[in-house]
Amino acid sequence: MSSVQNPATESLSPANTAQALDQLCINTIRTLTIDAVQKANSGHTGAPMGLAPVAYTLWQKFLRYDPTDPTWPNRDRFVLSVGHASMLLYSLIHLGNIRIPGTQEPAVSLEDIKNFRQNGSRTPGHPEYGFTIGVETTTGPLGAGCGNSVGMAIAGRWQAARYNKPGQTLFDYDVYTLCSDGDLMEGVACEAASLAGHLQLSNLCWIYDSNHITIEGKTDLAFSEDVAKRFESYGWNVLHVEDANDCDATTAALTTFKQTNDKPTLIIVHSIIGYGSPHKQNTSAAHSDPLGEEEVRLTKRFYNWPEDAQFLVPDGVLEHFAGSFGQRGKTMHAQWSNLFDQYRQADPQTAGQLDTMFARQLPENWDKNLPTFPADAKGMATRDASGKVLNVLAENCPWLVGGSADLAPSNKTKLVFEGAGALEPGNPGGRNVHFGIREHAMGAIVNGLALCDLRAFGATFLVFSDYLRPALRLSALMELPVFFVFTHDSIGVGEDGPTHQPIEHLASLRTIPHLITLRPADANETVEAYRVIFNQTARPAALALSRQALPVIDRTIYGSAEGVARGAYILADTEGDAPKVILLASGSEVSLCLEVFERLKKDGKGARVVSMPSWELFEQQESTYRDTVLPPAISARVAVEQASTFGWERYVGRSGEIIGMHGFGASAPYKALQNRFGFTVDKVLEAALAQLASTPAS
Amino acid sequence: MSSVQNPATESLSPANTAQALDQLCINTIRTLTIDAVQKANSGHTGAPMGLAPVAYTLWQKFLRYDPTDPTWPNRDRFVLSVGHASMLLYSLIHLGNIRIPGTQEPAVSLEDIKNFRQNGSRTPGHPEYGFTIGVETTTGPLGAGCGNSVGMAIAGRWQAARYNKPGQTLFDYDVYTLCSDGDLMEGVACEAASLAGHLQLSNLCWIYDSNHITIEGKTDLAFSEDVAKRFESYGWNVLHVEDANDCDATTAALTTFKQTNDKPTLIIVHSIIGYGSPHKQNTSAAHSDPLGEEEVRLTKRFYNWPEDAQFLVPDGVLEHFAGSFGQRGKTMHAQWSNLFDQYRQADPQTAGQLDTMFARQLPENWDKNLPTFPADAKGMATRDASGKVLNVLAENCPWLVGGSADLAPSNKTKLVFEGAGALEPGNPGGRNVHFGIREHAMGAIVNGLALCDLRAFGATFLVFSDYLRPALRLSALMELPVFFVFTHDSIGVGEDGPTHQPIEHLASLRTIPHLITLRPADANETVEAYRVIFNQTARPAALALSRQALPVIDRTIYGSAEGVARGAYILADTEGDAPKVILLASGSEVSLCLEVFERLKKDGKGARVVSMPSWELFEQQESTYRDTVLPPAISARVAVEQASTFGWERYVGRSGEIIGMHGFGASAPYKALQNRFGFTVDKVLEAALAQLASTPAS
Repeated sequence: MSSVQNPATESLSPANTAQALDQLCINTIRTLTIDAVQKANSGHTGAPMGLAPVAYTLWQKFLRYDPTDPTWPNRDRFVLSVGHASMLLYSLIHLGNIRIPGTQEPAVSLEDIKNFRQNGSRTPGHPEYGFTIGVETTTGPLGAGCGNSVGMAIAGRWQAARYNKPGQTLFDYDVYTLCSDGDLMEGVACEAASLAGHLQLSNLCWIYDSNHITIEGKTDLAFSEDVAKRFESYGWNVLHVEDANDCDATTAALTTFKQTNDKPTLIIVHSIIGYGSPHKQNTSAAHSDPLGEEEVRLTKRFYNWPEDAQFLVPDGVLEHFAGSFGQRGKTMHAQWSNLFDQYRQADPQTAGQLDTMFARQLPENWDKNLPTFPADAKGMATRDASGKVLNVLAENCPWLVGGSADLAPSNKTKLVFEGAGALEPGNPGGRNVHFGIREHAMGAIVNGLALCDLRAFGATFLVFSDYLRPALRLSALMELPVFFVFTHDSIGVGEDGPTHQPIEHLASLRTIPHLITLRPADANETVEAYRVIFNQTARPAALALSRQALPVIDRTIYGSAEGVARGAYILADTEGDAPKVILLASGSEVSLCLEVFERLKKDGKGARVVSMPSWELFEQQESTYRDTVLPPAISARVAVEQASTFGWERYVGRSGEIIGMHGFGASAPYKALQNRFGFTVDKVLEAALAQLASTPAS
Repeated sequence: MSSVQNPATESLSPANTAQALDQLCINTIRTLTIDAVQKANSGHTGAPMGLAPVAYTLWQKFLRYDPTDPTWPNRDRFVLSVGHASMLLYSLIHLGNIRIPGTQEPAVSLEDIKNFRQNGSRTPGHPEYGFTIGVETTTGPLGAGCGNSVGMAIAGRWQAARYNKPGQTLFDYDVYTLCSDGDLMEGVACEAASLAGHLQLSNLCWIYDSNHITIEGKTDLAFSEDVAKRFESYGWNVLHVEDANDCDATTAALTTFKQTNDKPTLIIVHSIIGYGSPHKQNTSAAHSDPLGEEEVRLTKRFYNWPEDAQFLVPDGVLEHFAGSFGQRGKTMHAQWSNLFDQYRQADPQTAGQLDTMFARQLPENWDKNLPTFPADAKGMATRDASGKVLNVLAENCPWLVGGSADLAPSNKTKLVFEGAGALEPGNPGGRNVHFGIREHAMGAIVNGLALCDLRAFGATFLVFSDYLRPALRLSALMELPVFFVFTHDSIGVGEDGPTHQPIEHLASLRTIPHLITLRPADANETVEAYRVIFNQTARPAALALSRQALPVIDRTIYGSAEGVARGAYILADTEGDAPKVILLASGSEVSLCLEVFERLKKDGKGARVVSMPSWELFEQQESTYRDTVLPPAISARVAVEQASTFGWERYVGRSGEIIGMHGFGASAPYKALQNRFGFTVDKVLEAALAQLASTPAS
């Protein structure tokens, strides 16, 4: 690493050479960051100060991005996995003059930068996808952006394999990720890197900011591995830039990346955190928090910057950036548009398909041929029904891509129709992704696929939803319509025992804002659950499915499965004026409640069964509907779910009964467990009768 | 890898040579597994069949374990990270004649093996710590055991550094971990391996079963990295055993491990999954499920085993195992006991400390010098109070070890008293563990530390509790009294924005069985929360702490903070007969409710404030106490918490009001957020008055 020397050899103006203009741009990024953090009295200066030359070089010389159309499908993706360095990205978006589509309004104005981290500004503490134009994914939780970027790179190669034609390269975008020590320590990034190497994602470049500093001190307090060797072991090409300030070295490394066609690239950049701050650079103190007024002055002096100027964008900077970054992107986008016009002429149908994909809509007739399952007491597992439905939907929606974390045979997620195929190094257009035993990376990759306009899904056992929970939270925060197939959804797992039996997972998924959790009661509810999922444009979904066979409910006798769309619906109801008990259940417990219902009915007792596959959908219904399903006057209520009882008080009140799990499960055949934990007709009947006895007539 | 050849060159009996007896033992493990899975009609045969020679060699020739005292503190630890291979472990426990302490009863009887995976048997589907003697940690969720084993190895070195004396080596145990492709793909194991390399844990040996098969097919569908090179990059010593059946090669590798003093060891064993099954070996079909009756016969024939015998333990097997494995352990334990007697004579005080540690109790006066904080309107953040309390407790309890995932300065978890020190390669007895930015591994390592009798904790931001949730679940399942310090517990995080602001985390932690979640309202409740935590012997705890300063409540006016121990308590109450509204809150919202209380009181309105730091503790109180705090007759209730409202209906019923978060947070100074999201005196007051107006007098 070079020692710190003054990089600005000329006075601020005039900057006569391209190199001087480059340096001016770099120092503008640095000082905007410093000023923004100082004004906000909050934020992170160190990484942007150290990395500005690298990020600038990437954007100015390589990144294919049309600032007038940030949605251009073949743009390169820039992921700031080191999300706390958000001012680096905001500075680039501002200086690159990226505009809000359809307007001349800047995506990030100087005013936004002055309002860094303030209420309502476009410059939140960490970059938020969908909130600030130019941000490709929400980052901050370390490792997440790395995982997303692998998904994006898979998506790019998938789109190329599926849609490019000889002489018509519609897709050849690259994915660049700026990451930190923290990212590379996180398991999710380790998993994602291993898969990226396996898949030989040569369109993926991670730029690793090796600054040797973490919050607790020197990185080597906890991290002394040979990162280069690790990535080589994954099958990556590893390059070094010995000094972050050496833009030629960065250029050379990025050029090598562009020339590499058989593996992903890691560029290890040796940088100085807080570069230019005489008292804080190269220390933990530079990681976060404002430099302080005096240190700001000293740092600006070091940059040969006017010490009193704040939020200064010197003359020439915007023009310089527009002339290279801006012009290159616009030109390439125009060429691409011409190409796409030719493509459309030759093959309007496929071009139309791409239009639909880019608009993140579904093809017409996406729901054709969906099965209907006849009533069947013996029934089928909802995971089996799911497998059938998913295959139909995937055939109807050609850009649905997904897979399992090595549980496809158990999750029933394998797409088996002709041409589905495995997504492999030699077959990047396969529909079945083998994520390996890497749930967290799977979640992050699924998000990355969706960010590049694919419909995407992942799958594992419900109990292992915990492994990918951080990614699922980001799906929800980014409002991505991805979905996860979580099978083996209760103690119905049986012999595998408590490590494999979800208890708290349904409740804890229901707590995640925006996420839709669905637990269908039978095969036909499974069909309807998929209908709900595919109709989403901005909400992720978690589908909880049974391992064991569930009766296929006779819909000629009971309510229609279409009720799934409303979250909860009346499945069975006695007529007459007898006081009623409402039995609420989801999934495998619905049929149990139907049995109890029939017993009650036979005995002349009033009862209702409400199938409740999704709390979230039910909550968004009008109160008239909700009160029809769950009349407030009926307080005799029993909820039954083979899961934690947590939260069910919302529907049964303080006087109702909840039959659920109050601890972990156990290893035994599942019927033995249902007896042991009280999920039997007798127990539910007993509770229903007690409710009827203790509550006044409605 | 060798081709499959018949390993049994002699007929079953007599086995005259040690080698023949070894082979007999190995095939006994294999056939017990086959028979158990066949009878249960459920389970995994492939890994035990392939790995039996390796595991047998390790136990018979190396593992230091006294079968008559499975709690001997200096025993080697054997971790079956590949938990689905549970029959391998149960066979070893049975053949090794490990006994339930204080009895002659086998920890795993042949009857237990015949009842593999059945209700109540000691042989659940995956090994469960605390349920089956001889099981060192609960495994099944992949990667978890690997992470635990790093914690165990850290613990061993820590105990050695702190307690060994010249000539008196009380602690020098090794930790062996059997792991699979799946383990090594999981992020948690990657994180743990990197830290193990950094810490140069030469007492740690992972044995990697490289069988090239996963559930979805060949491993190279998703996993083609160079594992050896990866582990070398972490700083491990990597050895190979080319054929799992070659016990001499395994012996040589384990001998090399024993001789390695500066780094952990990975032994890559090339094995054949389902070895011996003519039609299933080396395929995914061998991973799980019974072989089938005919295949069982063919496999036994291959082993030269009586085809009709079931659950056969041939003569000589138990004796052979007892003569080596059993005798070695007993002898070494006896030597150790003599040593400990001498140690005790020389230094009874330290020996007594060790007795207390081994009994998993706390030292006398563990709570001496705990601070009391004077009332203070300006107050302090509960994370700051936590830092002070934790330092006192750690000084009082010399075997409390823990740290943060690179957020110690923010989590305030650094132990700063004299002699605390950082746990580093050269200082394995340090008290501050620098986990690096590896939350999931931290969770698994903390569990491993606790399994070796240390009191252990980890720390990160509350929002990143998601990253370690799978480990936290296992803390709860294993009933380990570990704790996690989760700071930055709400939108009070402020400018860092929604990626860093927990919303659903409190609710989702409350859903985990056995876990105690605590969110103290001020500095003094923080003290009491720690008192609760340290009094646990079988429950983990999660402590949610504020980033921002909270008033220190005047306890001369309001209720005593000792109420924390009961989960919820009356903090303020108006006298008289006026109808009352109950304000329930936790953490930072308690003081807000007190302000509202004072406003109501001034206006002559009846009100009560209930501070509710822990739902779980409140739930375990007698109903008389619960009804005193929350009288059923008072239905006017308002709950206030800067978190998802999920679950609060339990305490406010269907008619109460919940002021909480209904979506993600935002980036802004925290006071702006509190206004934006309605956590103000005015809003709470309004809700309280509405409740009073709409409900009948109690």
